[in-house]
Amino acid sequence: MVQTIRIPISVEWKEDHIKLLNQQNLPHHTDYINLTTIEDVYDAIVTLKVRGAPAIGIAAAYGLAMSAQKYDFETLEQFKLKVNTEKSYLASSRPTAVNLFWALNRLEKSLENVRSINEAKTTLLHEAFQIQAEDEEMCRQIGENALTLLHPGDSVMTICNAGSIATAKYGTALAPFHLAREKGKQFHVYVCETRPVLQGARLTAWELQQSGVETTLITDNMAAHTMKTKGIKAVIVGADRIAANGDTANKIGTFGLALIAKALNIPFYVAAPSTSFDLTINTGDEITIEERSPMEVLQIVNTTIAPENTNVYNPAFDVTPNHLITAIITEKGILYPDYVEQIRENMCDKYISL
Amino acid sequence: MVQTIRIPISVEWKEDHIKLLNQQNLPHHTDYINLTTIEDVYDAIVTLKVRGAPAIGIAAAYGLAMSAQKYDFETLEQFKLKVNTEKSYLASSRPTAVNLFWALNRLEKSLENVRSINEAKTTLLHEAFQIQAEDEEMCRQIGENALTLLHPGDSVMTICNAGSIATAKYGTALAPFHLAREKGKQFHVYVCETRPVLQGARLTAWELQQSGVETTLITDNMAAHTMKTKGIKAVIVGADRIAANGDTANKIGTFGLALIAKALNIPFYVAAPSTSFDLTINTGDEITIEERSPMEVLQIVNTTIAPENTNVYNPAFDVTPNHLITAIITEKGILYPDYVEQIRENMCDKYISL
Repeated sequence: MVQTIRIPISVEWKEDHIKLLNQQNLPHHTDYINLTTIEDVYDAIVTLKVRGAPAIGIAAAYGLAMSAQKYDFETLEQFKLKVNTEKSYLASSRPTAVNLFWALNRLEKSLENVRSINEAKTTLLHEAFQIQAEDEEMCRQIGENALTLLHPGDSVMTICNAGSIATAKYGTALAPFHLAREKGKQFHVYVCETRPVLQGARLTAWELQQSGVETTLITDNMAAHTMKTKGIKAVIVGADRIAANGDTANKIGTFGLALIAKALNIPFYVAAPSTSFDLTINTGDEITIEERSPMEVLQIVNTTIAPENTNVYNPAFDVTPNHLITAIITEKGILYPDYVEQIRENMCDKYISL
Repeated sequence: MVQTIRIPISVEWKEDHIKLLNQQNLPHHTDYINLTTIEDVYDAIVTLKVRGAPAIGIAAAYGLAMSAQKYDFETLEQFKLKVNTEKSYLASSRPTAVNLFWALNRLEKSLENVRSINEAKTTLLHEAFQIQAEDEEMCRQIGENALTLLHPGDSVMTICNAGSIATAKYGTALAPFHLAREKGKQFHVYVCETRPVLQGARLTAWELQQSGVETTLITDNMAAHTMKTKGIKAVIVGADRIAANGDTANKIGTFGLALIAKALNIPFYVAAPSTSFDLTINTGDEITIEERSPMEVLQIVNTTIAPENTNVYNPAFDVTPNHLITAIITEKGILYPDYVEQIRENMCDKYISL
């Protein structure tokens, strides 16, 4: 039985502009904004109005395609040069989101065989559409695969928002919960609030409530006690980047959850599309951890919570080593250790470089 | 070389009332309030204006003694009955703070041999004074003992505020850092902000800055990444209650830190006075975990951070099992596993019951 379930969408192409769910104003205001320039798109990525690796890739792809529609050049070479310049501009907006580079490279590559500027413009837009459609299908498939590991009725823990609004639709870590709702089934999801930016409290609690998933919100430091006392059957998280050995960069706090889950004998799953694999890096040690503004920690919703001038460390991500990961759930199937071999065999067509 | 260092004090007796540092307004306002009735004291404990097990005990002791100064009874029996009633009233303010029960019982017990109401009034006040003076000396000694395990210059992590303002002076987990300052030495303390009530960000960062300790503030979910990448040499936390086997109830998040420290091979220390041991309970399983209002999680400084009506789990404490604790640092010395034996041998005069 398939029920009609309201699953929110974050990025939509509207004829000549991008309609974007402004995730900065959630959960209190469901604002959609129009992006009409490449600077709008760059700004939306930097200020986290759009976040989540796949959604950033989709927004960037539409952003590059949108900007190219307005190019006024004589030659295809000039056109391609400008595409390349604007690609680099957008690629500089978030250093850890590998899907961003992947999507932009794919757009540029789609121009290889075009023969006119008009064809190039159509091709870029078509490619952006394709990226979005493929992402939705990938996420749905990740959800289906995850459902083979999880049992409806179970309590499951997640962090951050690897959700529908972080992708084309369904999300990665949240896909099984939305899909379960479409199938008339139910999970109970314990949502870590995810300081400093509170994506769990602001986004995941909101998103899961939209499709009717049962949720309980906790602060991040309640994870260990909750796993031990609330019968958590699994932890499932997304990924910003997965190295060739399975080491996974994801939202700060993920590494701690993985260590705690391991100690308490609870399966720890990473759910991610094959586009999140970066086979140019061998291990997580090669992943640059983005540090963000101290103000994210010192202030919550514009209220300062600590003494002024307090020294702050604010890493946005951490790296979970492969030995803490029970399985990596992709659209192509579920990978188990030894990841080096599994990833080489199944993900090598996703080899990516800037 | 002993330097003059400004270490804040939270509870002071002022002739006929209690002068209390209102910790709810820190770090932005250093407000002191006057408590003149037993209801003031009860309210100050419930609303966390005073917090930290030893400071609560001191405030409650002064509260009971203060109230008793105003009793107008004919007989000592009536006086003692009223003391017993008000003792139970104050004891009901926080179910997890064993020092509260200990201090109140000690006051009641001090009346056993008194022969007049006047003597009873003086005795109660004297006993409250004694509790405060002994607590300061205990904390100083905990700090000295801790310094034998920590090395100045090291980076150390803590959670919540087991600090000077949680005790008579110096604190427990923070005592070595204040003492080091008095000795002209320095640590670098990584302070977990400690959601939901943010005692780390609001209190510990503030308190350590008062005495000039170097601090870096992190969100709770950054603990694992910070321990791994910032060369953390030890984690040191306080305790609200320690069972006969060493299982330790402390601020929510402590259990997670202990699991992470264990996995990363970092020593995990509990610093607590002997008054925090409760030998009436054999293990942590017998400790009731207080659950507090969902609004503490849903709101930060009066701003709602999640969708309205979001389901919340808000345990105030968790229990760290003894096998995760490298050592328990008390004023009487440092306890190592096997804790059952060590605690029985060294703490049995602290057997406590209501």
